[in-house]
Amino acid sequence: MATSDVSAIRALVFDVFGTVVDWRGSIIAEGARLNAAHGLAVDWARFADAWRGQYAPSMALVMRGELPWTNLDALHRRSLDELRPTFGLIGLDEVALTDLNRVWHRLRPWPDSVAGLTRLRERFTLGTLSNGNVALLVDMAKNAGLPWDVILSAELVRAYKPDPRVYRAAHELLGLQPAQVMLVAAHQNDLRAAQAVGLRAAFIPRPHEFGPDNPPNPTPDPTFDIVAADFLELAERLEVEGLS
Amino acid sequence: MATSDVSAIRALVFDVFGTVVDWRGSIIAEGARLNAAHGLAVDWARFADAWRGQYAPSMALVMRGELPWTNLDALHRRSLDELRPTFGLIGLDEVALTDLNRVWHRLRPWPDSVAGLTRLRERFTLGTLSNGNVALLVDMAKNAGLPWDVILSAELVRAYKPDPRVYRAAHELLGLQPAQVMLVAAHQNDLRAAQAVGLRAAFIPRPHEFGPDNPPNPTPDPTFDIVAADFLELAERLEVEGLS
Repeated sequence: MATSDVSAIRALVFDVFGTVVDWRGSIIAEGARLNAAHGLAVDWARFADAWRGQYAPSMALVMRGELPWTNLDALHRRSLDELRPTFGLIGLDEVALTDLNRVWHRLRPWPDSVAGLTRLRERFTLGTLSNGNVALLVDMAKNAGLPWDVILSAELVRAYKPDPRVYRAAHELLGLQPAQVMLVAAHQNDLRAAQAVGLRAAFIPRPHEFGPDNPPNPTPDPTFDIVAADFLELAERLEVEGLS
Repeated sequence: MATSDVSAIRALVFDVFGTVVDWRGSIIAEGARLNAAHGLAVDWARFADAWRGQYAPSMALVMRGELPWTNLDALHRRSLDELRPTFGLIGLDEVALTDLNRVWHRLRPWPDSVAGLTRLRERFTLGTLSNGNVALLVDMAKNAGLPWDVILSAELVRAYKPDPRVYRAAHELLGLQPAQVMLVAAHQNDLRAAQAVGLRAAFIPRPHEFGPDNPPNPTPDPTFDIVAADFLELAERLEVEGLS
């Protein structure tokens, strides 16, 4: 795989859903508890996939101007309300629905995430660079112990990734040149959009993100600077190659 | 002094220069090293006061539209260049000037700041709410060990405090009602501007901020929710009164 000089990098910014946290497994686990507490029989794996399936289309409505700026909490709630009848989620009251929508604030990290970030933070400024809104990302970090130095969000520029404004905001707000910032992501389209504005790219495949039946394309774009199996391997690679 | 129900508070946002860090003492200490290294005889106490004296006027140029949006790093550099001839700082090269301007990224916390914030963070979301730009605040936090959950800055809304947009952005980005957010500051005008948009107010007098000859007005506005001598006393007060 291609590697290239990464010694200029000062900050790492991370895609969050799927890259840092396991949204699908977290929703399934919370859903099982909700089934038990409310006597429901919801198929939470299917529900999680459907909810996440609305993610890109709902952001596209905003980016095409068919919705005014709407943050991700509100888009998640909109999708939840659309999906409820289909999935037998009509009995929940407003308090329970509000709490369910906030499951995105409580997503659980992948096993390597906290240890890897903690190690990376010794050498780099670490930030989110997520379509999640600021409150969601702050709550998630407190809940999961994610040691960010800065919360960067699409909400700050009111445009969703892969809009170039989001990636530009990352290096501009950090006072850095594009090549001093690396996006870390499990999604190749996200990384290519970051590269298009000059950021560096680290691909961390997360083969279990979409569940056992939907493994993502494992073949990395050869233009990525680093491909690593997890955040600990990423730290190791940056420590070795950053010295060259 | 007035106290009031603070049990609704979920997040504390902090003014930074003077409230969390000792800008004057930090500049004087770095300046002494610069005098020694470059054979200068700059009066750094006077220089620090003059530099900080340009702070409000330079932001006012932006807010009146006489300058386009300019972040605080750039305003500090503008003021530094204006003051250099008067203070015998003309011999420094560009590398040294750039580094001197970044002294604001390296300001030292007051003795209670890190311990107080660490204690407050157990119960509250902690953010900056500063006219400092994001990069400045991130660097300062990493350098001084300030345990913020989120970096909120005037730069995010391109308006300087006391413009109401800055205070509104704080509660909106945190997904909270104004009364769930408390501004902690050593400056009464900052607190009153926060109160005007519905935030709660904690006044922490910092009697040494402006040096021994310029103690600030010690009499707190009776409308502030809490007045405490330092962040540890603030933590204690919020722990006790938050239960009422």
